[in-house]
Amino acid sequence: MRTDTIILNKERNVSLTVYLQEVGGEFRGVGERPAVLVIPGGGYAMCSDREADPVTFPYLKAGYHAFILRYSLKEQAVWPNPLADYEQAMALIRGKAGEWHVAADRIAVIGFSAGGHLAACAATMAENRPNAAILGYPVITGATARSYQPSAPDAAEAVDAKTCPCFVFATRTDDLVPVGNSLRFLTALEQNEIAFESHIYANGPHGLSTGDSSIDGRSFSSRYPRWVEDSISWLREVLGGFGPDGPTEALFPPRINGNREETLSVDCSLEYLLAKPAACELLPMIRQIADSSSVVSAAARAMTLRVCLLFDGCSEEKLSEIDAVLRSIPNTSGRTEPGI
Amino acid sequence: MRTDTIILNKERNVSLTVYLQEVGGEFRGVGERPAVLVIPGGGYAMCSDREADPVTFPYLKAGYHAFILRYSLKEQAVWPNPLADYEQAMALIRGKAGEWHVAADRIAVIGFSAGGHLAACAATMAENRPNAAILGYPVITGATARSYQPSAPDAAEAVDAKTCPCFVFATRTDDLVPVGNSLRFLTALEQNEIAFESHIYANGPHGLSTGDSSIDGRSFSSRYPRWVEDSISWLREVLGGFGPDGPTEALFPPRINGNREETLSVDCSLEYLLAKPAACELLPMIRQIADSSSVVSAAARAMTLRVCLLFDGCSEEKLSEIDAVLRSIPNTSGRTEPGI
Amino acid sequence: MRTDTIILNKERNVSLTVYLQEVGGEFRGVGERPAVLVIPGGGYAMCSDREADPVTFPYLKAGYHAFILRYSLKEQAVWPNPLADYEQAMALIRGKAGEWHVAADRIAVIGFSAGGHLAACAATMAENRPNAAILGYPVITGATARSYQPSAPDAAEAVDAKTCPCFVFATRTDDLVPVGNSLRFLTALEQNEIAFESHIYANGPHGLSTGDSSIDGRSFSSRYPRWVEDSISWLREVLGGFGPDGPTEALFPPRINGNREETLSVDCSLEYLLAKPAACELLPMIRQIADSSSVVSAAARAMTLRVCLLFDGCSEEKLSEIDAVLRSIPNTSGRTEPGI
Amino acid sequence: MRTDTIILNKERNVSLTVYLQEVGGEFRGVGERPAVLVIPGGGYAMCSDREADPVTFPYLKAGYHAFILRYSLKEQAVWPNPLADYEQAMALIRGKAGEWHVAADRIAVIGFSAGGHLAACAATMAENRPNAAILGYPVITGATARSYQPSAPDAAEAVDAKTCPCFVFATRTDDLVPVGNSLRFLTALEQNEIAFESHIYANGPHGLSTGDSSIDGRSFSSRYPRWVEDSISWLREVLGGFGPDGPTEALFPPRINGNREETLSVDCSLEYLLAKPAACELLPMIRQIADSSSVVSAAARAMTLRVCLLFDGCSEEKLSEIDAVLRSIPNTSGRTEPGI
Repeated sequence: MRTDTIILNKERNVSLTVYLQEVGGEFRGVGERPAVLVIPGGGYAMCSDREADPVTFPYLKAGYHAFILRYSLKEQAVWPNPLADYEQAMALIRGKAGEWHVAADRIAVIGFSAGGHLAACAATMAENRPNAAILGYPVITGATARSYQPSAPDAAEAVDAKTCPCFVFATRTDDLVPVGNSLRFLTALEQNEIAFESHIYANGPHGLSTGDSSIDGRSFSSRYPRWVEDSISWLREVLGGFGPDGPTEALFPPRINGNREETLSVDCSLEYLLAKPAACELLPMIRQIADSSSVVSAAARAMTLRVCLLFDGCSEEKLSEIDAVLRSIPNTSGRTEPGI
Repeated sequence: MRTDTIILNKERNVSLTVYLQEVGGEFRGVGERPAVLVIPGGGYAMCSDREADPVTFPYLKAGYHAFILRYSLKEQAVWPNPLADYEQAMALIRGKAGEWHVAADRIAVIGFSAGGHLAACAATMAENRPNAAILGYPVITGATARSYQPSAPDAAEAVDAKTCPCFVFATRTDDLVPVGNSLRFLTALEQNEIAFESHIYANGPHGLSTGDSSIDGRSFSSRYPRWVEDSISWLREVLGGFGPDGPTEALFPPRINGNREETLSVDCSLEYLLAKPAACELLPMIRQIADSSSVVSAAARAMTLRVCLLFDGCSEEKLSEIDAVLRSIPNTSGRTEPGI
Repeated sequence: MRTDTIILNKERNVSLTVYLQEVGGEFRGVGERPAVLVIPGGGYAMCSDREADPVTFPYLKAGYHAFILRYSLKEQAVWPNPLADYEQAMALIRGKAGEWHVAADRIAVIGFSAGGHLAACAATMAENRPNAAILGYPVITGATARSYQPSAPDAAEAVDAKTCPCFVFATRTDDLVPVGNSLRFLTALEQNEIAFESHIYANGPHGLSTGDSSIDGRSFSSRYPRWVEDSISWLREVLGGFGPDGPTEALFPPRINGNREETLSVDCSLEYLLAKPAACELLPMIRQIADSSSVVSAAARAMTLRVCLLFDGCSEEKLSEIDAVLRSIPNTSGRTEPGI
Repeated sequence: MRTDTIILNKERNVSLTVYLQEVGGEFRGVGERPAVLVIPGGGYAMCSDREADPVTFPYLKAGYHAFILRYSLKEQAVWPNPLADYEQAMALIRGKAGEWHVAADRIAVIGFSAGGHLAACAATMAENRPNAAILGYPVITGATARSYQPSAPDAAEAVDAKTCPCFVFATRTDDLVPVGNSLRFLTALEQNEIAFESHIYANGPHGLSTGDSSIDGRSFSSRYPRWVEDSISWLREVLGGFGPDGPTEALFPPRINGNREETLSVDCSLEYLLAKPAACELLPMIRQIADSSSVVSAAARAMTLRVCLLFDGCSEEKLSEIDAVLRSIPNTSGRTEPGI
């Protein structure tokens, strides 16, 4: 393993720690590796060592390269400095992807607490977005964020259609960063149709990192340490994994339907298409399906048109025709709220 | 194991299946057993066999008695019939607790989909509340509930201070009961300071039950089937478990602080006490702690006064004195919203 | 679930408890189910309730039917009475396979302690062999067996080529049935080329059953309770599992090579074929391969000829030709001991 | 993390890779760390990269320092060169324990294949023994060992009373290093009353390392990758773990009873004491206990006298008296074989 520490900004004391694994040779089929960029927490006042090295190890074991970003703190942390630090780090990693054998389109950020805020901002606001984000007991809301850094923005409000899939974990009893922060972010992801996974453990204080007994001996729910391997299993689903002959495909798309794409498609939800006059006019069947008894219930309007059509026995050929019609219609921004 | 099926309501075709395990003898220290009451789903139109027997087995293995409630369906499901069915079942179980060797104060409901709606209503509206609730991809909101049964209420709006601890799981991509249902319920639990655990898995269709391959062969996230053993581990935390000499204590209380009790106490959050003039007047220290630098940050206002005092080195004796003063003050209803 | 208790032998107080799950309907693709036959322990003096019902539940959850055999005890346990009880039970189950929707060729026995002895005898001596055997801290050797029942045979000495795949678990510190019993059985399986899996946990007393806290509160290694789900995962490999469209194929054969089949084949080990003059004469290549440098080392003689040939780039067609030649040679009994 | 590579023997190309984690600071209670010394395999012809870095990561995550020994190969591997390399490495690590913050009495070796042979030799033959040994699909027997390095000794024959606790894992279908190697070693450990844990997985080829998909894409039993976390859980039992206030005690002793200590004691097995005339003469109760019906059966002779006495209601005071008598008797070498 090659290790290095690169100074990104001497004045602001910003650095990138680099852990690069071997490729090729006995690692058959591994020409490049996906990577994680770890962003420790510490209330924008410090970067916790407990959320730095120890977090890299399980991802290194899983075959990833690992990086640790130590970003601007205290008075240097005035916004957008921390986000600029992230941008610089991600640009460097992607710029050196060839040299470092990094799969540039399979890079996840992992942030904790205030570092979770920065990782959430990277996922929602950055120019150079990550491909997945793992957020541990993150600071999200403006109110909580400002209590640590007065200039910090609300990350939930920034969720957009380009936000990457997110894995959010926290403990219910966290009294430093209340769990409502995570719930607000999940709700924003849901309303923007972004893929996510979430684990909120019943009991545990703030700042447990991996939950390993060598890091924190406090009392917490025995399920907590599972977030680590669950996040790796999830990363394999959203970024693809390692196969005998090279990387494998992602199993699931970053958005749960087509409602946020540039044009309409059969992957839009029935409910969404019903609110698009152009679609209903060109394809009267949309309204018929919504009114028919073939679909289980009114609740099924969250189903995509594809699922409804396949359910009704539609052929793949016919499906493609319908899709072509829909893709000719631009997806204008006005999205109706889901009526759940 | 003794098995039986008891007709609760012949006219409405309501029944209770009973699986009672042995106690005593070689089961040393097991004089009575906690129990689960399983409530299958099926859109208030059927009770799914996939969410009945197969769900009981892991809890039987974990030492619980198990019951299955088959409740009023279709036109018989007009509200509050299903809830009345639950009340009847729970009253029967608790009434026969002695005969059946059931620990009457350690009974959890487990409901799925529409059965999750009924279980959530049991947890929030019933006279005879369960001690814990496990909700699988539950129908929660009025809009979703009404799409299955027009008279069904919104379960999130009903969350109150007496709501039991809840374990909520779902899949992000459920298109029959959108994940927003679970998020609304979690948010209501959070705002009412009720303990909970939640697992939302990235991918999987509606109705996966235990996720065992013998029940459903569709594609889903490999983490999904873990909800079963995680829920058992969680039940042991909130209801207590089995010890060599009898039942063990619950590890964690049903509410995360004292903000919802009848009087104030040191287990109220700092933030909550700050909004209570009577408390601040009798104990000026409360405001001092909030203003002091000893507590990490403004975010720490979600901490209980107990935690803040112990953090500042307060003795147990002094803590008891302060608690006594606070417990002399009734906890009036007007609760300020948390400012996260 | 249908439950019943069938008296197999009134005089000897032998019975079969029957737990039959539903098939078909919502259990799509499940026309019949594999089954487990649980054989509790108790030193041939009792049948422990701790190793009866609680053991069935995880297999029921995994989709299996479950049976419990309560066999002849004390003076009635003179050999071969217990084995005859097993034979009667298995004949009944297989005889009623159609009626009970049991997959007659996917039935595993699970025995503990003395019941593990009986299960091991079923696997090695019975007319009506099980398809897999799970042995928990089993009594195996003649010396240990006789200390419980003077007429009981040594199960390790009885291992033969027809012995089914076995899953053996125990604790190192068992002082009632020393771990040497398990080691002797594993060694016999190895020498007979029978497939097996084995987990010996560092610490734990005798008789822990599933290791659930509701059964036994004594102290033991935290890994112990995993034998349950590991055994289910293993059963799916050796018996096949559940797929969306019906049962799936076994992943691995019951013997690790072809050395015990009726004729020779390319699945015999190189070492085994080298000791067969008829094979070496018809196929001089066998000796060439053994002498060549293409195979990693002398240790590779445990490899099958198939693996060696594929390693050397042999075509499937050529492989079939060679196999046909070998299958013309009867596999005479004299087997040389492996020279490890 | 500090990383370094130290040349141990330039001529023989022997090196020690060093991964040292931080201590103290935010790692409260961690003044020093236990360590693992990883010994890769490769048939004494190479040191596999697959069994080097990737193996260190999970132990680093668990709070251990990690070292990798690259030892003498090919013609340089003539015995005892590899063992001398180990001795040099272990002497260096223990010599620098203070500087490196290594807990010198909590160092485990982890060896694979030929590296497993070297690790087993370290555990059984070295001057400077490890405190625990993890052996992955190890070469053990003289016959297998010599096929890789003609001068290599049999490691099973070398097991002695000073051998440390061992964790042995392998796959049943390994055709390069047959599973009999592991079974021979376990049998030797059993006969020497050494503590061990063992996991033999039903299916998998040789050389799977951690079983992570980024290392090896071949087909194997899904349980295989669990050896990693199971070995960590086991290490915490035998070496002690991390607690909030510093290291915690080992839960279990390195030998399963007192039969191998310098004097007799109540921790000797009943069977062992029965064969010691001096003990039976001074304490006639020993024979009485063996003959009495209070102990479950003849099989119980593997129980220690302590267990038998406590079972019979003996007081702690009386127990101490008996122990004192026994400890006055030297434990002469002639040990009777257990009669299992």
